[in-house]
Amino acid sequence: MIFNFLPREFDFFNLFEEQVECAILAAKKFKEIVATPGLIEESAYQTIQHLESKGDTATHSIIEQLNKTFITPFDREDIHALTKELDDITDMINTMVVRIKVYKIPGGDRHLMEFAKVIEESVLTVSKAVKGLRLKNGSKAVLAACVEVNRLENVGDAMRDAVFMELFETKSAIEIIKWKEIYQDAETVLDICEDVANVVESIIVKHN
Amino acid sequence: MIFNFLPREFDFFNLFEEQVECAILAAKKFKEIVATPGLIEESAYQTIQHLESKGDTATHSIIEQLNKTFITPFDREDIHALTKELDDITDMINTMVVRIKVYKIPGGDRHLMEFAKVIEESVLTVSKAVKGLRLKNGSKAVLAACVEVNRLENVGDAMRDAVFMELFETKSAIEIIKWKEIYQDAETVLDICEDVANVVESIIVKHN
Amino acid sequence: MIFNFLPREFDFFNLFEEQVECAILAAKKFKEIVATPGLIEESAYQTIQHLESKGDTATHSIIEQLNKTFITPFDREDIHALTKELDDITDMINTMVVRIKVYKIPGGDRHLMEFAKVIEESVLTVSKAVKGLRLKNGSKAVLAACVEVNRLENVGDAMRDAVFMELFETKSAIEIIKWKEIYQDAETVLDICEDVANVVESIIVKHN
Repeated sequence: MIFNFLPREFDFFNLFEEQVECAILAAKKFKEIVATPGLIEESAYQTIQHLESKGDTATHSIIEQLNKTFITPFDREDIHALTKELDDITDMINTMVVRIKVYKIPGGDRHLMEFAKVIEESVLTVSKAVKGLRLKNGSKAVLAACVEVNRLENVGDAMRDAVFMELFETKSAIEIIKWKEIYQDAETVLDICEDVANVVESIIVKHN
Repeated sequence: MIFNFLPREFDFFNLFEEQVECAILAAKKFKEIVATPGLIEESAYQTIQHLESKGDTATHSIIEQLNKTFITPFDREDIHALTKELDDITDMINTMVVRIKVYKIPGGDRHLMEFAKVIEESVLTVSKAVKGLRLKNGSKAVLAACVEVNRLENVGDAMRDAVFMELFETKSAIEIIKWKEIYQDAETVLDICEDVANVVESIIVKHN
Repeated sequence: MIFNFLPREFDFFNLFEEQVECAILAAKKFKEIVATPGLIEESAYQTIQHLESKGDTATHSIIEQLNKTFITPFDREDIHALTKELDDITDMINTMVVRIKVYKIPGGDRHLMEFAKVIEESVLTVSKAVKGLRLKNGSKAVLAACVEVNRLENVGDAMRDAVFMELFETKSAIEIIKWKEIYQDAETVLDICEDVANVVESIIVKHN
């Protein structure tokens, strides 16, 4: 790859990695929240809110720099798409956590815990893909990570379909309304990770 | 700002202001509709439908002009985004009103009346921001309006979360399905206003 | 129109038509599925899955070619938008069919059969519009097809509103949750067809 001539002062990669870091911490906290019995604790809720706002700050910095910078490590539209999608991961985890609070969804649901594991795995794989963008000769590993993120999205689809089937057969209408949304959100996080992987893939394809 | 050299015959600002005018009238009519007890009256419904279609016409004119015009007051992609988002405000108010009719939602709901007030406030503030775009030395007031639109979106988020909590504790499943959508739509109008503000903000940042 | 100088080796039109073919076959299969009493048969489900994946392959080919090609028959952003929207038609039909399977929705619902007919009609009209893009002197027929697709979207809106009204008056909450989504999806297919028509229309406008 040919990104290394980028002057230090416009290091988009550092900011991308900051965004990814927020997403990883949010995914880990989410896994902890859904595994803890009882209603969500205020401190856990605040941690997610804080990560969401930290991710926002990184996103705004990238877009601001993008508007000022003439030479960018890859196409401006790809930088814009990548930063937006990375931000969406943390946003969506935050959306789920707000819903868990508002709907008073208790921790300990086996399905949601399984989703949280797949989400963590997918976000960690996204991190590999994004970090690989600045490495010379990194493209093979980056593309392998993208394939894995796509695989995890398919895993999530199948999980959601199975859990929806169970939901409609075992729960009351009000419970169905609540849980359907949460599970759908969880699957959406995996969709967003796939969107990130698609952007990364197209960047690699253009530069190789 | 440097927009004043724009030839009169391609006055995008007039068309933006026409779009904003539709959104303001729709927001005002919406406030009236949700405050009037009983089912929605056909004349009120028709007013909203008419505003939605008038907004569409302005949007199409802008996009048509954009495709014909070489010199634009600011980036083409920003004009496109601004006109689309402005159109979305009126569209979303129309969506709510169609839902109110189809679901036979009666007027007089305290929460929806509160939402309608915040929506009107936000649309009026969006109007200030958009009208400020063509003024010399207007950028300070424009940015202040954008900040206020963002604040109102946060107000809407908190309102929705509170009202959802109440909803799940007090209503039947069928009522939850109906009202949840209406309240969510109301919050979405505020999201769209925020999207407009973000586009306006980025235009100001690029030109100052 | 002026598209005919395009070198044979980058024939985007062939790929667009492949995408449209997938959408037509999916629409026809969908009509058959919703008309067949009982739960969906595995073979019908597999057919839709296969068409969705075939459509994906055509989409990826177009985007790959777009990244490699300097001279395109019309604006790159329009090619990108057109291929994305065409792919969305088949994707959305697939989403409906997955939902029919997961929610165990039986065939034979009068309303869904009506929707399936309008969807088939709309997709066939989209096909006319897209195929007309490569014809000299085809623009009049293409624009007429676009108008018809817009009309069918309005038909779908009215159908959905009527069926929603009936739904809330006659079904249980759990049934409402399931059927509301299916009918909404069906209307969304018509929205996507309208989006395709809008892209086609704007291409014609630019080139005439």
